[in-house]
Amino acid sequence: MDSLSETHLPRGFTFSAATCGLKKSGLDLGLLVSEVPSAAACLFTTNRVKAAPVLVSQMHLRKSRGRMRGIIVNSGNANCATGTEGIAIAATTALKTSWELGRYHPSQILVCSTGVIGVPVPAQKITKAIPGLVRTRRASADAFEQFTRAIMTTDTRPKWASASCAIAGKRVRLLGCAKGAGMIHPQMATMLAFIATDVAVSPNVLRRALREAAAKTFHAITVDGDTSTNDTLAALANGASGAREIRNGSNDYRKFAAALERVCRSLALQIVQDGEGAKRLVEIIVRGAASDRAAERIALTIANSPLVKTAISGADPNWGRILAAAGRAGVSFNPERVEISMAGMCMCSKGSALPFNENVAHRRLLGKQIPISLDLHSGKGLARVWTCDLTEDYVRINASYRS
Amino acid sequence: MDSLSETHLPRGFTFSAATCGLKKSGLDLGLLVSEVPSAAACLFTTNRVKAAPVLVSQMHLRKSRGRMRGIIVNSGNANCATGTEGIAIAATTALKTSWELGRYHPSQILVCSTGVIGVPVPAQKITKAIPGLVRTRRASADAFEQFTRAIMTTDTRPKWASASCAIAGKRVRLLGCAKGAGMIHPQMATMLAFIATDVAVSPNVLRRALREAAAKTFHAITVDGDTSTNDTLAALANGASGAREIRNGSNDYRKFAAALERVCRSLALQIVQDGEGAKRLVEIIVRGAASDRAAERIALTIANSPLVKTAISGADPNWGRILAAAGRAGVSFNPERVEISMAGMCMCSKGSALPFNENVAHRRLLGKQIPISLDLHSGKGLARVWTCDLTEDYVRINASYRS
Repeated sequence: MDSLSETHLPRGFTFSAATCGLKKSGLDLGLLVSEVPSAAACLFTTNRVKAAPVLVSQMHLRKSRGRMRGIIVNSGNANCATGTEGIAIAATTALKTSWELGRYHPSQILVCSTGVIGVPVPAQKITKAIPGLVRTRRASADAFEQFTRAIMTTDTRPKWASASCAIAGKRVRLLGCAKGAGMIHPQMATMLAFIATDVAVSPNVLRRALREAAAKTFHAITVDGDTSTNDTLAALANGASGAREIRNGSNDYRKFAAALERVCRSLALQIVQDGEGAKRLVEIIVRGAASDRAAERIALTIANSPLVKTAISGADPNWGRILAAAGRAGVSFNPERVEISMAGMCMCSKGSALPFNENVAHRRLLGKQIPISLDLHSGKGLARVWTCDLTEDYVRINASYRS
Repeated sequence: MDSLSETHLPRGFTFSAATCGLKKSGLDLGLLVSEVPSAAACLFTTNRVKAAPVLVSQMHLRKSRGRMRGIIVNSGNANCATGTEGIAIAATTALKTSWELGRYHPSQILVCSTGVIGVPVPAQKITKAIPGLVRTRRASADAFEQFTRAIMTTDTRPKWASASCAIAGKRVRLLGCAKGAGMIHPQMATMLAFIATDVAVSPNVLRRALREAAAKTFHAITVDGDTSTNDTLAALANGASGAREIRNGSNDYRKFAAALERVCRSLALQIVQDGEGAKRLVEIIVRGAASDRAAERIALTIANSPLVKTAISGADPNWGRILAAAGRAGVSFNPERVEISMAGMCMCSKGSALPFNENVAHRRLLGKQIPISLDLHSGKGLARVWTCDLTEDYVRINASYRS
């Protein structure tokens, strides 16, 4: 966080954080406000079971037609499987926040929660903290840094990313942060990510840009294949940069979309690198499949294979497990054409073992970033996903998360 | 293995084992022979990548029209991703075995391998050991016990099961053994299972009975969601009991099928209980789904969720993870009707938390067998699957399997 300064802040946004007692210790409530009207776009969890704040935020987004003012988020309790009471608590949180902010409609506030499922929310702790949260909000790097800490659960470090681009001579800034370390899987796993930008853009165009960026970034990462009930990726764009409005498909759009994808990719990779117990970032590229979709299925099956992930945690060049995982992905291919590389060394060609230096391979697999590539030589389909290794620490962290 | 005696042995079968040097130490080659002609039925891995012995055994089974004589199996090397040379080695192993046995056609021998993928097979070690293996075969409990040990890899103990039933006053015996501890998933994961019986039955009827039994047993267990390239379940039925032949759909068939299912269930549960690093057997029953298929998808998603499995290793009654896993199974249901029990305690009703005594729940979850039940209250679909917990030892074992 050292390198974050005021120059990274998009104009017209303020941030604050508070300790309201939902976590055993530390900041657990955060507020992000656009001081001027803002377009918003969100992607939510695809889980059938959706937490109360997700249901309330979806309703608010529809009601306000994508014109939002702020996001209030708590860690330490997911407010999920909490019945109608949970819905009431999420709605009240938005109401109280809009009331304290003075001039906004409750439906202009998004509500997010992350933490344990199925534990009643001590609503008073949240509502009591809201006035102070609203009062102390600042447009400062420090305040943003506090906000990023307030959304952390098993994360070992705050995650943020920034980008900027020029729109007709005016500088436009994007600043994002994310939380997430376990329950990570494409289609939004246990993660929250928020992006504030002072670009001028309509909710519809912003939604398109966000969806495209997420497809190549947040939807291409996996830690453990589990997806949560609370995931939310939200972008607020308030136009405070003074740059002209971005039009769909224009050159401006392409510049902004590229900057947005940079922020999303950086946040997504930070999540995987901070995967619970993870020591290594693994990039899996599958080429030569019948289609991109087929390549993606194979890449995700490899990325979620406990046997591949434990081999990497042991720096073991056990490429046979990659081949076996590809074979069970439910995708048709000719095993006799498969080529596999790990850490830049080709270990399998035409489906058969190639001799390679085990010691060199082991040394390379001790690195921080491990590329795996698999070429099926059966088409033009391509996919790239990221995952991390599976370590004893993952088990230790998750065997005792609630206690 | 203490309780196995000569009375469990089906008539007309002999067994032997040898140490040929494929594993670092211990028995690694086994032979099972029917001394009289025998019907055979097999289920093989559904992985796209099939090991050489699987391809050769499939060919032999077709060629001999399900009339087999024996099974030769090695541990310590999977003979997979070994190219045409691997095929030649598997075929030669069968040839040499039939040659030494004296009177059988090579296609009457099944070949199985289990171990590391992508390592060339030292074929000489196997072929050299075959004459001794054939010569020392015996119809004894000791010889069978040696055979069960020869097929072990990361298994911590040999696995066997027996059953018997009376067909028109004659006793028919079934004796099975299995290996498997990791890479376990429905549709045959890294497991080999062999069942010898002296029932008289045609290959077609035997295949039907085996398929039905496997659907409820071997296809309902999962350790880590990975499926291997070598899995084989083979049954040999030689009629040496002297009982009349089993006809499809008869009362005899039902008695035999029930005995076969008992053997398969016992072997399947022994595999899960010996899951790599596992401390607990978890039985997951899903009720009230729209269909059996939907119930099965949810049950398997729960059974493979690393977050559910780590919670159980920590004896943590974290039922929210069960709900979240059900929600991402890709099956439609109403979250507000869901009821969840763990270890006999109802923790969630109508989709919301129920108060329960955490200490009692924790104590119950320290048991050896943990029942989990989930009722969707949305239909009549039912499924039952078994898995084990995910422990730090699973990671330790698999991070260093090859080294």
